[in-house]
Amino acid sequence: MDIAATIKNMALEARGAARRLATLPHPVKNQALTLIADKLGQEKAAIQAENRLDVEAAQALGHPAAFIDRLTLSDKVIQSMVQGLKEVVQLPDPVGAVTSMWRRPNGLLVGRQRIPLGVIGFIYESRPNVTVDAAALCLKSGNAIILKGGKEAIRSNLILARLMAQALEAAGVPGAAVQVVPTTEREAVTELLKLDELVDLIIPRGGEGLIRFVAENSRIPVLKHYKGVCHIYVDADADLNLANEVCFNAKVQRPGVCNAMETMLVHEQVAPQFLPAMFKRFRQANVELRGCSRTREIDPQVRPATDADWPEEYLDLILAVRVVPDVDAALDHIDRYSSKHTEAIITRDYDNAQRFLNEVDSSVVLVNASTRFNDGGELGLGAEIGISTSKLHAFGPMSLEELTTTKFIVYGSGQIRQ
Amino acid sequence: MDIAATIKNMALEARGAARRLATLPHPVKNQALTLIADKLGQEKAAIQAENRLDVEAAQALGHPAAFIDRLTLSDKVIQSMVQGLKEVVQLPDPVGAVTSMWRRPNGLLVGRQRIPLGVIGFIYESRPNVTVDAAALCLKSGNAIILKGGKEAIRSNLILARLMAQALEAAGVPGAAVQVVPTTEREAVTELLKLDELVDLIIPRGGEGLIRFVAENSRIPVLKHYKGVCHIYVDADADLNLANEVCFNAKVQRPGVCNAMETMLVHEQVAPQFLPAMFKRFRQANVELRGCSRTREIDPQVRPATDADWPEEYLDLILAVRVVPDVDAALDHIDRYSSKHTEAIITRDYDNAQRFLNEVDSSVVLVNASTRFNDGGELGLGAEIGISTSKLHAFGPMSLEELTTTKFIVYGSGQIRQ
Repeated sequence: MDIAATIKNMALEARGAARRLATLPHPVKNQALTLIADKLGQEKAAIQAENRLDVEAAQALGHPAAFIDRLTLSDKVIQSMVQGLKEVVQLPDPVGAVTSMWRRPNGLLVGRQRIPLGVIGFIYESRPNVTVDAAALCLKSGNAIILKGGKEAIRSNLILARLMAQALEAAGVPGAAVQVVPTTEREAVTELLKLDELVDLIIPRGGEGLIRFVAENSRIPVLKHYKGVCHIYVDADADLNLANEVCFNAKVQRPGVCNAMETMLVHEQVAPQFLPAMFKRFRQANVELRGCSRTREIDPQVRPATDADWPEEYLDLILAVRVVPDVDAALDHIDRYSSKHTEAIITRDYDNAQRFLNEVDSSVVLVNASTRFNDGGELGLGAEIGISTSKLHAFGPMSLEELTTTKFIVYGSGQIRQ
Repeated sequence: MDIAATIKNMALEARGAARRLATLPHPVKNQALTLIADKLGQEKAAIQAENRLDVEAAQALGHPAAFIDRLTLSDKVIQSMVQGLKEVVQLPDPVGAVTSMWRRPNGLLVGRQRIPLGVIGFIYESRPNVTVDAAALCLKSGNAIILKGGKEAIRSNLILARLMAQALEAAGVPGAAVQVVPTTEREAVTELLKLDELVDLIIPRGGEGLIRFVAENSRIPVLKHYKGVCHIYVDADADLNLANEVCFNAKVQRPGVCNAMETMLVHEQVAPQFLPAMFKRFRQANVELRGCSRTREIDPQVRPATDADWPEEYLDLILAVRVVPDVDAALDHIDRYSSKHTEAIITRDYDNAQRFLNEVDSSVVLVNASTRFNDGGELGLGAEIGISTSKLHAFGPMSLEELTTTKFIVYGSGQIRQ
């Protein structure tokens, strides 16, 4: 296979499909999504047969059980893919909306109209169900998508792409709107990242290594999702029961995800009262605690935190704890160590709540709620294709609207520039 | 000078300033802009003395008169810089606005709040007045800016930066909010483009060579402004007098700019009636015409257009002309050759007007108005820092709002994730 030629040809086909997709009526897109859902249900056995080959190959290579679990398209996972498609059907179509319109003194009527981005390259690891989720969001927002999944899921991804293309064609939508790269070679990624004339956006989703590789090698704009070093600051004026519930949820409910709390900052006035009960509950949930010296004055059992702990994304049942003298110190700590992902304050103090919301430079900033709410669905945007931690274009969860841009439309009556 | 260390240090200083700028009240920013305007007026003689050194050096190197003209900070240019600052004072502050807010079923109140991008690197050629314009827009939108101007303007830019920093400090704003790179070495640009941990956005403004160099070497997101190959399509149903006025304006009023018309497409039904008078007027204005074979059937004096003409940005009194059989052919031509900058249709046909607005994939699409209106000021956005032809983050003219992003703010009352 000539990889460069294959990838370029896919991008050209995607470009052609994108032109058609941009003006597709909403009911046609929904019809296509519905046909995809039907098709995946009908062809479950064929999907699982291909998936089994992926799973067996991964097992033979000695991948751990958690990896195999995420790779496997069980009945339940396929059912949730079908359900996800039906939910995307229910979301509003972002394309075509004129978000604002104004009249100029010379009579020109100027508006901003929402349009798709065009062609999106999506580069991700393992989980084959993401293939369908991402394709659905791109289709609904009028974008063509080129998917490059993990090498272990190649057979699963290819059959999913084939079935999706068939359903698209049956709905009168170009099949090239959804394409999976048919090779596991990394060269396919580097070739894709060169095609800045054909591809409008690259979204990488996976480990930090993948994201850095993509960011450093792409000529196409990249929406990065780096790590989430999320903080909760328990203020002097916090409701300590509420703080206990929220901090426990943020750390323990699902520790392996990017919006879990990694560092807890506690005001010195409440630390002696708050920490003992909190630590007891964390220890019952097998959370390892690493604290600053003042934390250890309160509880000497806590292991000392080192400088390496503050910028660390544990993605595990480990928590760094620091006692701070005031809200300024908490804000300084966050400014220095946060990954601009998600931070929360627990307080009953009006001024500190407002200050925290205004001054913290992160994609989602919360008062009296768990960091785990940084999620497209939880914030009410609908399904998400990723969470951006860079500020350009989208900052925070990316859903349908973030897969579009706006152009200016101008209604004139012969105006010329003076 | 250790260029890498100098640039990194500037970026660190800018980062610190950006944190302060992000929460600066609107009156303080306006006070700083007003003090800058006063300072530039008071120090006119000192500015012009430094500028004269730049001008003499450029003359000694044999730069053409047009170049020298753009480099010169005449009384009139300084007056217009001061006026520009006063206009930016009058614009609304985009920062802090909560653009929408909604309630989730669990009671969370979720909003999007406008925030500055942070630190912007602005890389541009010659014209030293742009230094002040760009700094003013960044300051007003709460961003720190690092400016790297053309090497011929280095002395002018450095004194402008020094005066601006003095005025900023007098207003209680960190002087590091506005910094000019103190060297003409290209290494300064390549070092700046590496600092993706400190700089949030690069805006290049200048020739295609500069923009390509920046785009290919940057690890930081770049808002590109490539060429403007702008089209006007004169439809079968056009008001031909209106078409004549608009096309003449779009080509002749200022041919050297990116929103001037480069190709005129004319429906075959009106070409025999429209073109002769139009061509006569163009020739009187010294416009060179290059036409397709059907254009030349109507006027054999027109020089034949070659395949190289259709994608060409002349930036000069040259026009490519093509007769097309229908609106579909016009849309196909635009899809193939446009640079996604600006396109217009001249028509009285309702359906074709709506179709053109919907289907043309350019940053500004107009009906019955000159392409010259693709400009931040003319569209009502206020002053502009550039015109983006890529779709990410901003598509079209970039003004204050486009120098910001949004974060999510969440007011909770103890919500945890289930």
